[in-house]
Amino acid sequence: MIMTFHHTYPVQLRFSDVDQLGHVNNSVYFSLYDLAKTAYLSAVLGEGMNYRHSSLVIANINANFFVPVFFTDQIAVETATIHLGHKSFTLLQRAVCAVTGEVKCECRTVMVAYDVEAQQSFALPGEWREALARFEKCTVEELEAGR
Amino acid sequence: MIMTFHHTYPVQLRFSDVDQLGHVNNSVYFSLYDLAKTAYLSAVLGEGMNYRHSSLVIANINANFFVPVFFTDQIAVETATIHLGHKSFTLLQRAVCAVTGEVKCECRTVMVAYDVEAQQSFALPGEWREALARFEKCTVEELEAGR
Amino acid sequence: MIMTFHHTYPVQLRFSDVDQLGHVNNSVYFSLYDLAKTAYLSAVLGEGMNYRHSSLVIANINANFFVPVFFTDQIAVETATIHLGHKSFTLLQRAVCAVTGEVKCECRTVMVAYDVEAQQSFALPGEWREALARFEKCTVEELEAGR
Amino acid sequence: MIMTFHHTYPVQLRFSDVDQLGHVNNSVYFSLYDLAKTAYLSAVLGEGMNYRHSSLVIANINANFFVPVFFTDQIAVETATIHLGHKSFTLLQRAVCAVTGEVKCECRTVMVAYDVEAQQSFALPGEWREALARFEKCTVEELEAGR
Repeated sequence: MIMTFHHTYPVQLRFSDVDQLGHVNNSVYFSLYDLAKTAYLSAVLGEGMNYRHSSLVIANINANFFVPVFFTDQIAVETATIHLGHKSFTLLQRAVCAVTGEVKCECRTVMVAYDVEAQQSFALPGEWREALARFEKCTVEELEAGR
Repeated sequence: MIMTFHHTYPVQLRFSDVDQLGHVNNSVYFSLYDLAKTAYLSAVLGEGMNYRHSSLVIANINANFFVPVFFTDQIAVETATIHLGHKSFTLLQRAVCAVTGEVKCECRTVMVAYDVEAQQSFALPGEWREALARFEKCTVEELEAGR
Repeated sequence: MIMTFHHTYPVQLRFSDVDQLGHVNNSVYFSLYDLAKTAYLSAVLGEGMNYRHSSLVIANINANFFVPVFFTDQIAVETATIHLGHKSFTLLQRAVCAVTGEVKCECRTVMVAYDVEAQQSFALPGEWREALARFEKCTVEELEAGR
Repeated sequence: MIMTFHHTYPVQLRFSDVDQLGHVNNSVYFSLYDLAKTAYLSAVLGEGMNYRHSSLVIANINANFFVPVFFTDQIAVETATIHLGHKSFTLLQRAVCAVTGEVKCECRTVMVAYDVEAQQSFALPGEWREALARFEKCTVEELEAGR
């Protein structure tokens, strides 16, 4: 299957991201994915999302590391929604070389809709489902089936 | 299956680990797993491991987040080897409350033996296989079958 | 002047704290000072301090780096109050080798009492002044004169 | 004195940079200054600088925090050399709002030329002194006098 990403976000590496081996440390990737995810959700859900009351928490992270990233690499993170569940959805993200397109790492993240005050998960609102599908240029049903 | 962990490592949380929601940020867990992993490998492989020449790189991380961690929580990371491959092995780690034992997060990490200078992976040396099995109180064959 | 520190806090280094040169990155020291500071303030001010309403913000940080810290070093942070102002006080902190006592880095931090909701600074309450002096085994007047 | 900065570097904030109070954590500023410093030194010294053999280590950091930074702020770091010593030089950096120019924080950093292999400091090479002065549009003598 050929994925098309409609959201690409250039990320900035910091000197302190690099470990003794000269590679960007594995834990740093998740800060970068987080950053791109925030931009993605803001682009897709916009004002429909109130981070104080209804939030999204991470249930699962699954990342494959293909190629090390070096400090001088130009990295962009691509983000797409690949599955819609009842109370959760799954993002696919890739850290790619912005110059060559080489995929350095890919990561699937399961996000759960969570009410911070009530301290419980909730069903993804219809408008979120539609906004995610619209952004991904497919139908809600297609996202529910997964890709 | 009931896992027994023979390596438990108390980890220290930092104020800067906590995000706006008051939770330890997801990316921080991987720094904590990394820390415990370093202690585990040092305890198991000891001097047999030369980090400059033969190293271990991460191929896959798969983490389930069950319960948020707060700044005041006492956290320990449990680590065990659960599978031996040809050039790789898999660690299971859990971030647990050191007081109650509650499992906050669990993570599987596939580590690949990698020669930094030659820039290629290599078969896990026999003494590493035996050291890992000995530490886990099982046989090399049992670790190869996985648990 | 010979400083006596009544608060010493062992800190845990992480693999990701170390940069390409094999040294703990300079920015990491401030996370460690922060950690020790939180423990110090909790020990000194205890329940008298409500982080949500009345908080402390940092106005100035002044750090001297004497000797690099390596991943395998055992580091403790010593903390003392060295000056009391009207709305602020100054902490002296040192990152020392827990084994040899060698001072790796020292840092002065000016903390200002700040009301988060009112968004303005406020005079240090009398009970804070007394608690700080009591902990430092000196008088409020001595701390006001500085040491 | 009115400082003119000839180097301005936009920096990217990460969700994990923000602490419980909603502010960018103090320790993060130093990662951002580090990032801008690396870009500055690369622009000024270019190929004349071999990070492996001759390096720069930080001797002192002195930072004033004026206004908190929030996640949604657009931040740029301005960097200038303000003093040349025999074996060291001093940078002035400011974290400013890229939109309004408001100065959030300023920091002076004393950098010492350090030979990593020989493990000792060395006199700043003449070509470094000239490159720094040229970039700052002043003479070496003016930089030695400080500004």
